[in-house]
Amino acid sequence: MADLKPFPMNAWYAAAWCHEIKPELSARKICGKDIVLYRRADGQVTALEDACWHRLLPLSMGRLKGDEVVCGYHGLIFNSSGRCTYMPAQKTINPSACVRAYPVAEKHRLVWIWPGDPALADPATVPDFHWNDGTDWVGEGGTFYSLQCDYRLVIDNLMDLTHETYVHAESIGHDAITDTPLDVTHSGRTVTVTRWMIDIDAPPFWAKQLGKPGRADRWQIVYFQAPSVVAGDVGVALTGTGAPQGDRSQGVNGCFLAAITPETDKTCHYFWNFVRTFRKDDEQLTRNITRAHVNDGKGVYDQDHTVLEAQQRAIDNNPRMPFYNLNIDAGALWARRKIDEMLAGEQGVVQTQAAE
Amino acid sequence: MADLKPFPMNAWYAAAWCHEIKPELSARKICGKDIVLYRRADGQVTALEDACWHRLLPLSMGRLKGDEVVCGYHGLIFNSSGRCTYMPAQKTINPSACVRAYPVAEKHRLVWIWPGDPALADPATVPDFHWNDGTDWVGEGGTFYSLQCDYRLVIDNLMDLTHETYVHAESIGHDAITDTPLDVTHSGRTVTVTRWMIDIDAPPFWAKQLGKPGRADRWQIVYFQAPSVVAGDVGVALTGTGAPQGDRSQGVNGCFLAAITPETDKTCHYFWNFVRTFRKDDEQLTRNITRAHVNDGKGVYDQDHTVLEAQQRAIDNNPRMPFYNLNIDAGALWARRKIDEMLAGEQGVVQTQAAE
Amino acid sequence: MADLKPFPMNAWYAAAWCHEIKPELSARKICGKDIVLYRRADGQVTALEDACWHRLLPLSMGRLKGDEVVCGYHGLIFNSSGRCTYMPAQKTINPSACVRAYPVAEKHRLVWIWPGDPALADPATVPDFHWNDGTDWVGEGGTFYSLQCDYRLVIDNLMDLTHETYVHAESIGHDAITDTPLDVTHSGRTVTVTRWMIDIDAPPFWAKQLGKPGRADRWQIVYFQAPSVVAGDVGVALTGTGAPQGDRSQGVNGCFLAAITPETDKTCHYFWNFVRTFRKDDEQLTRNITRAHVNDGKGVYDQDHTVLEAQQRAIDNNPRMPFYNLNIDAGALWARRKIDEMLAGEQGVVQTQAAE
Repeated sequence: MADLKPFPMNAWYAAAWCHEIKPELSARKICGKDIVLYRRADGQVTALEDACWHRLLPLSMGRLKGDEVVCGYHGLIFNSSGRCTYMPAQKTINPSACVRAYPVAEKHRLVWIWPGDPALADPATVPDFHWNDGTDWVGEGGTFYSLQCDYRLVIDNLMDLTHETYVHAESIGHDAITDTPLDVTHSGRTVTVTRWMIDIDAPPFWAKQLGKPGRADRWQIVYFQAPSVVAGDVGVALTGTGAPQGDRSQGVNGCFLAAITPETDKTCHYFWNFVRTFRKDDEQLTRNITRAHVNDGKGVYDQDHTVLEAQQRAIDNNPRMPFYNLNIDAGALWARRKIDEMLAGEQGVVQTQAAE
Repeated sequence: MADLKPFPMNAWYAAAWCHEIKPELSARKICGKDIVLYRRADGQVTALEDACWHRLLPLSMGRLKGDEVVCGYHGLIFNSSGRCTYMPAQKTINPSACVRAYPVAEKHRLVWIWPGDPALADPATVPDFHWNDGTDWVGEGGTFYSLQCDYRLVIDNLMDLTHETYVHAESIGHDAITDTPLDVTHSGRTVTVTRWMIDIDAPPFWAKQLGKPGRADRWQIVYFQAPSVVAGDVGVALTGTGAPQGDRSQGVNGCFLAAITPETDKTCHYFWNFVRTFRKDDEQLTRNITRAHVNDGKGVYDQDHTVLEAQQRAIDNNPRMPFYNLNIDAGALWARRKIDEMLAGEQGVVQTQAAE
Repeated sequence: MADLKPFPMNAWYAAAWCHEIKPELSARKICGKDIVLYRRADGQVTALEDACWHRLLPLSMGRLKGDEVVCGYHGLIFNSSGRCTYMPAQKTINPSACVRAYPVAEKHRLVWIWPGDPALADPATVPDFHWNDGTDWVGEGGTFYSLQCDYRLVIDNLMDLTHETYVHAESIGHDAITDTPLDVTHSGRTVTVTRWMIDIDAPPFWAKQLGKPGRADRWQIVYFQAPSVVAGDVGVALTGTGAPQGDRSQGVNGCFLAAITPETDKTCHYFWNFVRTFRKDDEQLTRNITRAHVNDGKGVYDQDHTVLEAQQRAIDNNPRMPFYNLNIDAGALWARRKIDEMLAGEQGVVQTQAAE
């Protein structure tokens, strides 16, 4: 039981933004694995186990020599497949000397890593994160490294936007969110939560983006891909202009993006963006939106993190206490079920503790 | 065994000074329980479990709405009995949805909480702490929150004042303390240690308070109420004026007060005061006495805390080592026996490790 | 299994430099034991268990009274044999009241302590550390207290100087080290690793010390005494002047000295020196050499420590992973075998995890 992890290993996880990985050594811990990343001369990214075969020193403390990594302790060299190609003071190289190489895919401006069985890694199964491509949608996000909570608490948070009313009361919160029922559908490894708020006063952030007087229809369509990617199609349009039926031309549309990567059982990296299809050339607006999310503890995500980390501490202090669930948790519950199915497939057990 | 606590749960423990609890949320950990406190509109104090029924977020991170607490995550509302009165986005409220409410009593300028079985909580059994009332005796104390030691080490410390000679050599220490035998009596849940030092030179602090030349009789009568309240009647009077027989008119009399509340197994909150019956209107003296106790590491209590926290670390480093006891420990041993009796009543075991 | 230690207890370990121990109380943790040291009036050093018999307060928080230690809590007094000679408020002293006294030897400018069975402590078995005497060899070293790694990682490091090429590339590293095979011999509790590099260009540090143009012969003769003392006879001489045959007159000769003392299972104190036989009166050179070793993170030992502490963290993160070994590890492997033999003698088990 002690070795059960709350995350599936056979999955693609975001490890870095593409622009972060250069021809130099970068260290990341992903799903409990220490990994060193670098970009090769051919432009591809290599991800190796970050511990020398010989004496475990992190290879990220060494240096690149072409496409190979030289250990900073005794000079062993490993190629981009993880095979040792040089040992000091000896001519024969132990043929079993190697470090693990992890499958890597670059897609949608992120570097994805597969920490599990390499034979199962299919680049075609990298999550759909096309909103992040910088083409139809624009926005500049970032990463919270080592957020001090189980990655599933972030998913819970994003799959139920009711919390906006309480955690983000002054910006995007709205009583209408709480008052409006939500609809949940699921299929394969995905879950979709849909909430339409018809004929409301838009909350401050959205009223400002809409820039027109009058009542609005607001939507929140949150799309989860197990185990850890969320995209939230959100926006407002003038009431009566057909948004619920598909015509968003009289509205403004954004999408919050989250690729949440377990670092350890109780910490995670959170790659985020908020992209939009309106005023795409307005760089000041891009900066303002980034700042609305992350701003020295005052942004929307900063507020979430305070809550999430406090929640993790409370869980640690009450280890036997299960979660109780409300109607609003339907999306999160289905997301957890999808994760549990993946875990059951790998580990033969279901993990989520929940009393319903 | 792992769940055995060194403190009884069915007891009143000081949680705050009355003036600290206002119509706003205050968090305290008492006997391992996270508790949120606030004062209601009717002036009474409410103490609730500080973890939302839904997802465990500390309620102290939410806000008060009248006499009810609104959770800062999803807006669940709990009344002062701990019952949930509102759930977001649903009309029916799960009737079992509640957080624990703890019995509270306000007495002697302190808020007392009963962390155990509410059915057993009788306000008439709040410890006698009348010296703290601000009437016959005056003084302004304070609280050390999260002192890093088992609360019983503080009791050991206060039940044997021999340590004054070594820890507080320059203020209230005196070889006479060590040279004079003590008398211990006990009854029910109380223990009394009495030491009279006849015809001595008063130590610096007391000589100054007495303000008269000549030899003195000094007394230390320390009164313990299990599990964790100590009052120490101390003072000096001119020798031969009848103090041992009950006439303290030619002396000065103070009382140190300690309500020590377990925070965890190895940390405690220490509510203290030093009150007196002489020069009661002298506010500068009140400030001086406070400063003699707590003064950036140089006060008498600061000195004790350095010793107590070092002692706790030493115990942690020597987990199998029992305490050895001296004659001077008779009072502390009886106090521990009273605690052990309470623990045995609750848990069926005796805990204090001591080789005698 | 939980109580197995990676260090033998029946051995002499360096605890302090002689000049550090004065007639005042100094605390050290050695092999997991808290110890208080002081110099007596007769000039000898006493080492006692640093926890009062009564209530465990560190005696190092008390004070010396002549050659005896007064506890800072209740005034118990212990003599330099560890026997209690005074208890407060009682005339009879419990005859079993004592703290442990550890055998001590002063030799080669260091204070050595024997943490194990005193009956086995023979001062004649203090490691040979004569290079440190300040007579034939000169140098001023120091101590790293609480280095955050298993003491055996330091030994591994010193027993294979191949690492110089990678960790100290700019000062003493040299490809020749890696290219030259080493010779290992052992006997009793000692291991000797010898490497001669003939007709090479001396690396920058040594070229400067030699101060003569031309090719050089370089030697590294590292001598280990189990469990934890290393002396490394190192130097260069002009090629062809007979150094390998024993005539070092045309060369410069130094010796690095290391007495590594386990503090806990995963931390150690590292007493070091670098002594030399050339330009012995040049105090500026002495200062320069000290600075080459320890210099705000830029010295040779600073570089080692960064590696050693990172290696310890990596071992902690990969608890089941054994070490793999190379030819260059022959000296370290023999050193570990000598340690294992001592552990097997004491504990009946062999501990080093190594896959060969």
